This record gives sequence, C-alpha cells and structure tokens, in this order.
Amino acid sequence: MSKKYDKIVENAVGRKVPEEINGEKHVAFKGVGKHRPTGNKYGPPIPSCADYPDDGDKRQSSLKEALLKSGIKDGMTISTHHHFRNGDVIANQIFAIAAELGIKDLRWFPSASFPCHEPMIEHMKSGVINRIEGSMNGPLGKFASEGNMKGVGVLRSHGGRYQAVQDGEVHIDIAVIAAPAADAFGNANGVHGDAACGLLGFALADAQHADKVIVATDNLVDFPCIPWQIHGNWVDYTVEVDKIGIPEKIVSGTTRITKSPDRLRIAELTANFCDAAGIIRDGFSFQSGAGGTALAVGEFFAQMMKERNIKARFIRAGSNKYPVKMLEDGLADYILDGQTFDLEGVRSIRENPNHVNTSPFTSYNYHGKGNFASMVDVVMLGATEVDVNFNANVVTHSDGYMLHGIGGWQNCLFARTTILPIPLFRDRIPVIRDRVTTLCGPGELIDVIVTERGIAINPKRIDLIEKAHNAGLPLKTIEELKVEAEDICGMPENPQLEDEIIGVVKWVDGTIIDAVYKVKTK
Amino acid sequence: MSKKYDKIVENAVGRKVPEEINGEKHVAFKGVGKHRPTGNKYGPPIPSCADYPDDGDKRQSSLKEALLKSGIKDGMTISTHHHFRNGDVIANQIFAIAAELGIKDLRWFPSASFPCHEPMIEHMKSGVINRIEGSMNGPLGKFASEGNMKGVGVLRSHGGRYQAVQDGEVHIDIAVIAAPAADAFGNANGVHGDAACGLLGFALADAQHADKVIVATDNLVDFPCIPWQIHGNWVDYTVEVDKIGIPEKIVSGTTRITKSPDRLRIAELTANFCDAAGIIRDGFSFQSGAGGTALAVGEFFAQMMKERNIKARFIRAGSNKYPVKMLEDGLADYILDGQTFDLEGVRSIRENPNHVNTSPFTSYNYHGKGNFASMVDVVMLGATEVDVNFNANVVTHSDGYMLHGIGGWQNCLFARTTILPIPLFRDRIPVIRDRVTTLCGPGELIDVIVTERGIAINPKRIDLIEKAHNAGLPLKTIEELKVEAEDICGMPENPQLEDEIIGVVKWVDGTIIDAVYKVKTK
Repeated sequence: MSKKYDKIVENAVGRKVPEEINGEKHVAFKGVGKHRPTGNKYGPPIPSCADYPDDGDKRQSSLKEALLKSGIKDGMTISTHHHFRNGDVIANQIFAIAAELGIKDLRWFPSASFPCHEPMIEHMKSGVINRIEGSMNGPLGKFASEGNMKGVGVLRSHGGRYQAVQDGEVHIDIAVIAAPAADAFGNANGVHGDAACGLLGFALADAQHADKVIVATDNLVDFPCIPWQIHGNWVDYTVEVDKIGIPEKIVSGTTRITKSPDRLRIAELTANFCDAAGIIRDGFSFQSGAGGTALAVGEFFAQMMKERNIKARFIRAGSNKYPVKMLEDGLADYILDGQTFDLEGVRSIRENPNHVNTSPFTSYNYHGKGNFASMVDVVMLGATEVDVNFNANVVTHSDGYMLHGIGGWQNCLFARTTILPIPLFRDRIPVIRDRVTTLCGPGELIDVIVTERGIAINPKRIDLIEKAHNAGLPLKTIEELKVEAEDICGMPENPQLEDEIIGVVKWVDGTIIDAVYKVKTK
Repeated sequence: MSKKYDKIVENAVGRKVPEEINGEKHVAFKGVGKHRPTGNKYGPPIPSCADYPDDGDKRQSSLKEALLKSGIKDGMTISTHHHFRNGDVIANQIFAIAAELGIKDLRWFPSASFPCHEPMIEHMKSGVINRIEGSMNGPLGKFASEGNMKGVGVLRSHGGRYQAVQDGEVHIDIAVIAAPAADAFGNANGVHGDAACGLLGFALADAQHADKVIVATDNLVDFPCIPWQIHGNWVDYTVEVDKIGIPEKIVSGTTRITKSPDRLRIAELTANFCDAAGIIRDGFSFQSGAGGTALAVGEFFAQMMKERNIKARFIRAGSNKYPVKMLEDGLADYILDGQTFDLEGVRSIRENPNHVNTSPFTSYNYHGKGNFASMVDVVMLGATEVDVNFNANVVTHSDGYMLHGIGGWQNCLFARTTILPIPLFRDRIPVIRDRVTTLCGPGELIDVIVTERGIAINPKRIDLIEKAHNAGLPLKTIEELKVEAEDICGMPENPQLEDEIIGVVKWVDGTIIDAVYKVKTK
C-alpha cells in the first residue's frame, strides 16, 4: 500500500474522514439509519468432515503447532477475544510465536486490547504487527496516538465488529479463542474452570467466520463440553495449555458502588429523572455498566422497585453481583448478559437459566433483522466529552489521546432513552465542550445528560422534557451546564493535534463517523 | 426447464443417476469421503436494523400478510420444519394461501412431510407446487412414486439438508417456522406451549439462510422468549395464529417397548453383541431410535449399566421417556437431543440442563469442521432392505414405493459401529436382497446386521468379528441369512419399475447416490 489513508471527505456530521484506509475502501458516515448495505453476508470456505478426525480429537501439541497448521503467514489477520480483560495471557503468546517464526505485517483484530497487551508494542516496532483494529486501552492507545503504528487503527463497537466480520469487511484468517472450558472437538464455554469469565460471545463472529479457528484451553473436559457457547463444529484445532489467563484479573472478587458524594448525587438524579419520566414501571428494562456510578443507579432502581412491588422484565448487563442480586430477589425476570465482571456474575450465569448468554449478534449487530439494543427502555452510559448538540466522545481524552475502546457504547445509544450520567468536569477540565475531540455518537441519539449540578434534556425529546418538567429536578440547558463548568474551571484548552490520521472510528453500520489524529509531542 | 432430468452417469456405487435435475446441476456420488466441496458457504442478503421496528414488534396480522410482505411469487422455494410431525397445521395453510393468491410452481422444502400433508397433492395437481424436496411419507410418497409430481423429488438426510442450505445448493426464499413459544421479535423455542415439541433444530438452517423468515406461534410471550432456540435476529415477521399444531399428534403420551418376541430377541442379540464387542463400557455413547425394538435395546443397555455400576457419557436421541429415565437415574451424563418424541422428552429438555438441544448443524452436517455423528460409539438403525454387501435402503419398499424419509439415518452411519437390528423378513418378504431397490447407505459404513435368526458382521470389521467370535452369539454370514430367509419365504420378486426417475437420493456430501424410479401401475 502506498498511503496509509486517502480520499478525505466530509461526512454527515461534518467530520473529515478518509474513504480509503490501509489500502481498503470504506464509506463515510451518512447519518443514523441512512446507509443501506448491499450484497450478501460473508460465507467462509466450505469445509468437509472428511478433513477432520472422526473421533473429534482436534488437539495439537502447542499453540505454535496449531498456528503453523492454520497456515500462518505474512499479512494475515489474527483475531482474539477480550473476555479475560487485563488477565489475558494468550494473545501475547500468539504474536511472540509469530515473531519467532519471522512473520510480518499482521493485522491484530482483538475484540478489545488491554494494558496487559503492552508487549504488542515491540511487535509493532519490529513489523510483526502492522496495526491493531480494535479498541486500544492504555499503553497501546498512547503508542498509536503518538503516530507509531504502521497502519491506521480502526475502532469498532462490539456490534460493529460483528457487522464487519459478518459483512466480509474484515476477513479473519485465524481466530484464536481462549476458553475456560473446552473439549477436544472444540466445544467451549466460559462458565467452568480457573479462568471462568462467564461467556464467550465476543468470539462468536470469529468462530463463525474465520478461515481457521483455534480453541486454547487450560481446562480440557470430556466431550461434550456443556454448555457449548462456542460450537466445536466451527473449530479446526484445539490446544491444551498450562494457563490461559490470570483469574483475579479476569473477574473481580469485589464490585463496589461509588462512595463519592458527587457520583452518588449523579446516580440519584439519574434514578429520579427516570422515575419522573415514567420509565420505572412494571416490566421495564434497563442497562447500566459496571462502574461505580452506574451500579449506584441500579441500586436506586432496585429500591424503587421494591417499594412499589414491581419488577423489571430484563436487565441488560455486563453483570456483577448487583444485577445478580436483583435477579435472585425477584426484581427482574432475566439478565441478558454480554460479559460478566465479577465472580457472582460468573456463578449466576453458570447456575441460573434466567441469566442468559447473549452476544454482539443478538444484542448489537446493526446489520441484523433488528437487535436487542433498541428494545431497552433506558441505558446509562459514560463519555469523555459531550458537545452542546449532545454529540459525545468515548475514545479520546480532551488532550487528544486515544485511551478507550467503544465497547457496546455506540450500540446502546439505540435504547429508547439514553442517559449519560457524567461529572460536569474531571480534573478541573469541563466535560461539555463546543466540539468533541472525536465524535463517536451523534447527538440525536443522546437524550439526557445528568451531572452533579443539573440535568440537560435533548431539545428533540419534548416528551421527556414535558414529563420531567414538574418533578422538582434541576433541569438546565446544556449550554447552561457548559457555562457553569467554565465558570468554575475556566475555558478548556483544545488538544494539540497534528494533521495526521492515526485511527478512524466506525459507526454501527460500518461507515466512518470520525478520524483520530496524531497527538503533538515535544 | 425443458427436461426434468438429464445427463445420466454411473456413480461410484454403480447406480445410474442424473447430473442435471429440475434445471440445476448436481454431482454423482464419488465414494465415502471422496467429494471435496469448493467455494464458500452461502451468505444471505445483508439486512439493516434501519428496516426493522425499533421496538422489536414484527407482528403481522396474518400468515397471508406475512407471506405477501415476504414477496411470495411464482417459482419460489418455501420451507417448513417437521417438529410437529403428523400434527402440523401450518404447512397446509401456507400453500392454501399460495393457491388463493394464484401463485404457481413453488418448491416446497420441508425438513420432512407426513400423511397430514396430503392436501399438498391437490396443489401439486393444480401447479401451485412444482415439487417437494424433502422426505415424503405415506400418501405424498405414493403420489410421487406413481409419477405424478411435476418436478423431480430430491431426498436429503437431516444433515444433507443443512449442508445443501449452508452451501447455497438450495436457496430458500421464505422460511416459515411454526413455534410453540415466541416473542414479537421472533425469538422462539419448542419447550413451552400447547404445541411443545421440545426443540426447533430442523428449522435452524432455514432461519440462518432464508431471505425472509416468518415465525408463526399460538403462544406469544413477552420479550425475551427464553430459551431462544431460534434467534429473533434472523426473523423478518412474526404472526400470531390460533393453533399451530395438534398436540397429541406432535408428541406421544405413551412410548412403548416392543412386546413381539421376535423383536425382543433382536434387541437382546443386539445388546449382547455390543457387550461382546466391548462397546458397553464406562463413558460410552449410543444412539437408538424411538421404535419399539430400539427402545428395547436401550433397556438392555440400562440393565447392563446398572449391574456394572457404569454410566454412558451421552445418549444421542430422538428422546422419549426411556433415555430420560436413564439420564435421571444417573446412567448417562447427557442426552444430546435432536427431536423429542413424547411428553417426558419435552419435560426433560425444558427442565434439565443436561438434556441438551442439538441441531443438524452440530450433529449431522458433513460440510462442517466435524460433527457429532462420528463420535458416537454405537448406533442402531432401521432399513427396508440390505444387500449382501451391506448396502442398505431406507426410502423405498421392496415394491419400489418411496414411502419413507432418510431422516438422520445416513448421517448416523458414521458412528464407530453401525448396527441394523432388523427382522429377517417382513410380511414374508425377505429383507436381505441381492440388490437393494434404492441404495441409501454404502455397505462400507454398515457394520452389523442383527436379525432374530442370527448376526452378520461386515467382513471388513475384523475387529468386531474377533471380539464377537467366542461370545456364544449366533454369528452367520450375510449370505447365510439371505438363504435362510429365502428358504422360508421363497425368492422375493423384483419391484415393477418404469425407466422414469421420479426422485433422487442425496448422500451427506450433496452428491447423488441413487435415483428413485416410477412404479408401474395398472
């Protein structure tokens, strides 16, 4: 490829984005629901049972052996999942093997990367890895932000990642799926074993579509491995390893509600707003994250439900002990879970049939015949920045550094009501800006901003404004909130960025909603 | 299309088969494991959530409305599943609507058809239906056998049907999935409701690959319908109807072991043979059907396991109260189930997480990266005829009439040991022949024939012959068994057939293993 990116155009939200990246064509964002895909879903090569062992034993002696049998070579795309979060030990091994074999120019396609993956920096420097397509948290994000990655990063939401693979936009040559439990045939799950992470949904697209699929486990069980969250019928090779992850870094033993008075205030205002808006009724549904503020919102919800003797139909999660307790206390019929954050979450999804395994396919894929995200009554999400038109940023900090992934954030914006419960400022830097550094979510999908100093409702949600009007809530315009923050902190500085694009942010439909720029360093 | 079929060639088992059928190209059988597929799996058109309701409510007022919205038109392929067996009421409604709309030349692609579908004969006469591709039991088989179907029938195994859809050999325009429980989004299962049939695996290929998918239910539940054996993310429209099936014809309230002394003798010999062959050991697996003889074999197995204090790792089923009791008595770790035959089977799969939902994809698809069939230690199957080379027939009777479907029969032949426990003659017609009317399964995959008058082991299974040798079993050659039957019944007559091909039998890899001929009528 001659240029890292080319064909810059202005998209529907006024952001300049390339339509050619890493030698591949892409489409600029056209507006929410405006882009219509053409063509057919990607079908991987047709295999034959004649080429697989009759006894189902697909074990190879090592990861290296399995990678070699999978035909690893220069320029390939290798995918991994992030259910082990910062406790993953397999991804680093894969690229260490690739380096040892002298392979170059790989695309690493993780569902997310974490600080534990810092060794990948060496592989990017040496040319083993061309680029990471997937969220880059911490040191990898810093490395990319400073312009050190050879290729351009492509950031996708969980749903967007499924969409890209399903649509054939990203062709995975080799998927490596680390599994807390698996049989020799490749049936695998996340509920049993030392590295139990709950579920394996982030690896679903990979298992279904990759040319070659390797399952690595430190907990080989006799066939059949039940439940089979990953079907062995998709799997080429299995590998037994000593350890696939560090349990205490995979799931937390303790999940804690915030004790910060400001955060508690935000949580309470959020819950009270939802109450005023009529959202908390029998049979409603909600999604909040595993952060301290989000957990506090859930607890306020639980309190209200108990007092009124009502229950939620379902809780969308990222599960942990709080929604699990609600389920067990009869405050919800179901948890529809995408990843488990603590040991209680893992226990519950293992034991309770009403704690249900979901995936980016069921929940988030925009190129499906509907998905669950738009059926959730209310979702609470974070943001690093919001602008006065309610556009929000979730991947870069105000200094321009790309330090977070999108996760399911973009996908969740399709909920009936989307609330961002966020502090008015962080480290004395206002969160509400004239213009967000990176536009990840269009304002038309963001309904309410709840801060410790007031609530701003998106003017297009007249229904919410009417309902909240007489509820004694501190309603303000978003401009008022902005001014208030600036009065306290002063006008924030703009990030110091170069013209060079180091990454792009995809929208849920595969179009490009914004570019991420190189940060000026001294 | 000018001719119904063309390009007759002789295949690897010496049968003359067409390579062009109904205007489409096919491949002649090349031998077990010899055909290698090329190309990629079929990917259906990429949908967008923008075209589906945000609230997930895909309900249409009627089946007719849903079929019209699906764009029903001449020449289309419409699929249904057969989990309701002879109690299905939906398939007939679909084609009655098509007839009312004046639609012609449809291909009906059921996973199987039953006597209750006799009304389809009128649609075949009037030209609404061109042909049935799927097993034809009873009156439909007779109609086709007598040369009355406009197109040529194509018979596939359960696994072959999945393979054909996955590979894009059969393109389904509209799939209609009758579901005992469903939500408005289309999530569906077979475990809840008046028409509970246990599972919906036969509709999986259809849901995943059809252009348009309609779920019809008489038991609409609030989102989410759990478990979701069919994902609403594949579904275009949902329809509430009064009744989707006749419960007492869907599952039996009573499943009975044979009381015939001859059949019991066959069952006991089969069990004793398995014992002698060392198959019944701790952790083994087996599959037997729901017929009276097969159930008796299972009971003999249960007895042996109890006496020896061992257990099976899994039972492959068609489930009913007998394997369910084994599971509940601790004689098996798991039931891996493809369809439930009685109320106890339905109850168990609903309640017991170790009674596991499988599908033709996991169990039978030969164009997968392995499947479960070859991992089963021993399978007991039926047959209408067997020849002296152990080739067997399961779709036509000795009079040439095509009256049965293949079901999972061909797929199950890949078990480690395949036994046909069959009577030496039926209605004084010998079962062992010089040549089977229709060759459905190659003899190299059939290991043992157990009759009431002796056991014949395939000479290629020297291992089994050695093990059974000193066990006091009535071992005979298959020729000896044949002569014995002919001594009693006389030489059987050959079926009276015309030269015209009315159907073909596909092998598990999509190649054509034999043709079915028109029966001479007076």
